[in-house]
Amino acid sequence: MSYVELQKHYKKVSDLKHALTMLQWDDAAVMPVGGGIARADSIATLSGMVHSMVAAEPVGEWLQNAEQELLSSWERANVREMRTEWEQARSLPADLVVARSRATSRCEQAWRSARGDNNFAGVKAYLSEVLELTREQAACLAKQTGGSLYDALLDLYEPGLKQSDFLPMFGQLRELLPGFANEIIERQAEPKPLTGPFPVTNQKALAVELMDHLGFDFDRGRLDTSHHPFCGGVPDDTRITTRYSTANFLESLFAVLHETGHALYEQGLPLEWRGQPVGIAGGMAMHESQSLLMEMQVCRSAAFLKFATPLICSHLGSMPQESAWSEANLLAHANQVVKGLIRVEADEVTYPLHVILRYEIEIGLIEGDVTVDDLPELWNTKMVNYLGVSTTGDDKNGCMQDVHWFAGLFGYFPTYTLGAIAAAQIFNCAQTNLDDVMGDVSRGDFKKLVSWLRKNIHSSGRHLASLPLIEAVTGEPLNTTAFLSHLKQRYKS
Amino acid sequence: MSYVELQKHYKKVSDLKHALTMLQWDDAAVMPVGGGIARADSIATLSGMVHSMVAAEPVGEWLQNAEQELLSSWERANVREMRTEWEQARSLPADLVVARSRATSRCEQAWRSARGDNNFAGVKAYLSEVLELTREQAACLAKQTGGSLYDALLDLYEPGLKQSDFLPMFGQLRELLPGFANEIIERQAEPKPLTGPFPVTNQKALAVELMDHLGFDFDRGRLDTSHHPFCGGVPDDTRITTRYSTANFLESLFAVLHETGHALYEQGLPLEWRGQPVGIAGGMAMHESQSLLMEMQVCRSAAFLKFATPLICSHLGSMPQESAWSEANLLAHANQVVKGLIRVEADEVTYPLHVILRYEIEIGLIEGDVTVDDLPELWNTKMVNYLGVSTTGDDKNGCMQDVHWFAGLFGYFPTYTLGAIAAAQIFNCAQTNLDDVMGDVSRGDFKKLVSWLRKNIHSSGRHLASLPLIEAVTGEPLNTTAFLSHLKQRYKS
Repeated sequence: MSYVELQKHYKKVSDLKHALTMLQWDDAAVMPVGGGIARADSIATLSGMVHSMVAAEPVGEWLQNAEQELLSSWERANVREMRTEWEQARSLPADLVVARSRATSRCEQAWRSARGDNNFAGVKAYLSEVLELTREQAACLAKQTGGSLYDALLDLYEPGLKQSDFLPMFGQLRELLPGFANEIIERQAEPKPLTGPFPVTNQKALAVELMDHLGFDFDRGRLDTSHHPFCGGVPDDTRITTRYSTANFLESLFAVLHETGHALYEQGLPLEWRGQPVGIAGGMAMHESQSLLMEMQVCRSAAFLKFATPLICSHLGSMPQESAWSEANLLAHANQVVKGLIRVEADEVTYPLHVILRYEIEIGLIEGDVTVDDLPELWNTKMVNYLGVSTTGDDKNGCMQDVHWFAGLFGYFPTYTLGAIAAAQIFNCAQTNLDDVMGDVSRGDFKKLVSWLRKNIHSSGRHLASLPLIEAVTGEPLNTTAFLSHLKQRYKS
Repeated sequence: MSYVELQKHYKKVSDLKHALTMLQWDDAAVMPVGGGIARADSIATLSGMVHSMVAAEPVGEWLQNAEQELLSSWERANVREMRTEWEQARSLPADLVVARSRATSRCEQAWRSARGDNNFAGVKAYLSEVLELTREQAACLAKQTGGSLYDALLDLYEPGLKQSDFLPMFGQLRELLPGFANEIIERQAEPKPLTGPFPVTNQKALAVELMDHLGFDFDRGRLDTSHHPFCGGVPDDTRITTRYSTANFLESLFAVLHETGHALYEQGLPLEWRGQPVGIAGGMAMHESQSLLMEMQVCRSAAFLKFATPLICSHLGSMPQESAWSEANLLAHANQVVKGLIRVEADEVTYPLHVILRYEIEIGLIEGDVTVDDLPELWNTKMVNYLGVSTTGDDKNGCMQDVHWFAGLFGYFPTYTLGAIAAAQIFNCAQTNLDDVMGDVSRGDFKKLVSWLRKNIHSSGRHLASLPLIEAVTGEPLNTTAFLSHLKQRYKS
């Protein structure tokens, strides 16, 4: 049976991807700088082997046969995912895959030190190479699908997603949010300052305790430190990272809660489909919906802070009932709206503007209207326009702040805002279907909510694509209604 | 040119081996238990790919051609190493390689918990499978070389090494050492106890400081924690591990100094031969000579403790000049001879007896005279005979104490004692060729010694095999003279 051949073949592909994701985690979390060249070579060679295994001649024939075989609905979805991967791989020359892998590893490594030194010039050549190879990649992929260059890249991160799916929603947010943010900023009181230093070990102990409450399984995952928080690894060994500032513990804390949302998704993927294309998480928009549901909908709520404030105080506060450490003041910190420089520190009201800025720039980069040389100034102009802050002379916190482009991820940013929109819609549905979710949250009980997510989202793997799954679960196509009403309720009530 | 093809091909093999060594490090040092099955699969698939790349059809033709091409001496040695690897790979069926890899990963994972629970029964089935597959492996290899099963396995860890190379030396040690140890034990005074607890963070800080003094390059390596100390990784990213006991800091300290000897070798391999078979370290006997030279010859000396005592006290002692923390007392601890249960804690006088015991048992296992069921009792009998201590009912500290067999390493143990013998011979030669090595050591200056090792040993890679290299450097074949006179000088003076 060809299906069985495919299953065995893709399990091997998955074994190599396991190695890749772990090498990437290691590179970001623990690797000493000197290991960079050898690591980039190893990742490039493995990426090339994954590519040639996926694009192998017999796979095409197996796919054709399997598509005629009598299969279950999950098996059919598995074959569908295999075909997508196969067609993408067939459209890319192996040399390009290897060259792009090596270039992105080297560029990401160079970015780490260049960013620290606020030295955009020091990483420009690396980034230009990555961009050129990514444009080649997009051209190959678009030629096969017949769509636009940018849609071809979107497809890599959220299968089937097109610009046209979200342009109207992005337009609406770009229209509404700057004014909405201004109104809130005018009205909101300045929270009382939380004065550090907050030792990293205490912050980590707090993070671990909260992860445990949320349901993170430490027998199947870890928390570590990296330049940029992320969730990597595999379902039975999910690696999340954060970064700590001793001056501000909330940043790291909410980063951990965010990544825990990603990790719960990974750890909840269907056990019986491990190592198969249908068994992995949906695209990055769906993934982001799970992290943002946990971070924004759940953990930045008054209910969560009712539960978490005593824990926060016991790990970090050390002073019994100072008003700065009250639930109300911590909540004010958690929901403060600020037109700031840094995306990962942004509140949920201004966050989409950070994303839209990047989305607009990267379309220009991919279509060739914008060059790497233009980045610092173009970034600044848009920051001034959308968020009223300047990054002139501060590329570290400007166009160098995010690892994405340096790691070759173009077409990824929109998934953050689509995830935020989906998070609100899915959470709204969970609240409708479950009794007193927020009451549970205020008691530190996340079991019912996580079970619901596991049943309705996590255990689906890629059985359905993300947009159809959201529609199947919530009863309507992805739309901004729940997101906007969430914002109104949280910030205007 | 076929040589160039081979070079490219083996660089890719090396890229995959990079992934393997890092996955193995991760498995031992950081992986959560739940990741075990997926990890074993990934390592098995990668091992299978390495095997099939090395055994690939065109390699044979390239080798034949390259052997006729005009090559430098290093290139010729590179081709020689490639041929060895190719012939080994050709003799092994791919299925066996994958099955053995998966079985050893699973067995090592099972050993970790079984050992903790002193539950030999819980790991017996895993170990039997590993043993069966290793015996098959040995049979395939021996068929190709025409030698014995055990020699075929030795060859994997120290290329070219045969039992006949060391049997007379082992016989001499088994004869001499029990009595020699008894004499010392009768005569030596009990050192004053060093009373803990010694916090792990302090122990680690001390370890890092000493590693730095010895010349470990932290830009190209790390120190971590695992169940069993080891040195893994690659030359530009060398991963050493230790394990900490809060009751006894010397164990962990000397484990770190030992592994640092391995790491200096790795970090000193010839830069221009990275990723090529001739550029890797010699066999494990040579590797062990470098770790034991550092640990036994250098760091357990009075000169080293003159330098290290103030550092040890400042990190751990905390009491100014108590006599327990004197150089003399620390030296007495470092050189105490004890007939004990644990190999890795053994002094250099009794250590060869631990090795000979394992060597004798594993020959039986490989040749089929001994079964896994026999292990606990046979182990105990030999421990009583050679070291006068019993392991009845204590398999944790008996036949389960070492990871080696559970990780599939049969034929590895003899390299420890050959390394000890070589360490003495090489260090003796260094002292003859350099001025006042021990004076430098007492001042914490290891530069001259490490440079000499780098020049004479480390930078040789596999240009020469280990035994010829030892002869070339020291002017005589490997022999026990320097080792025995070192023991006499240290323990009888």
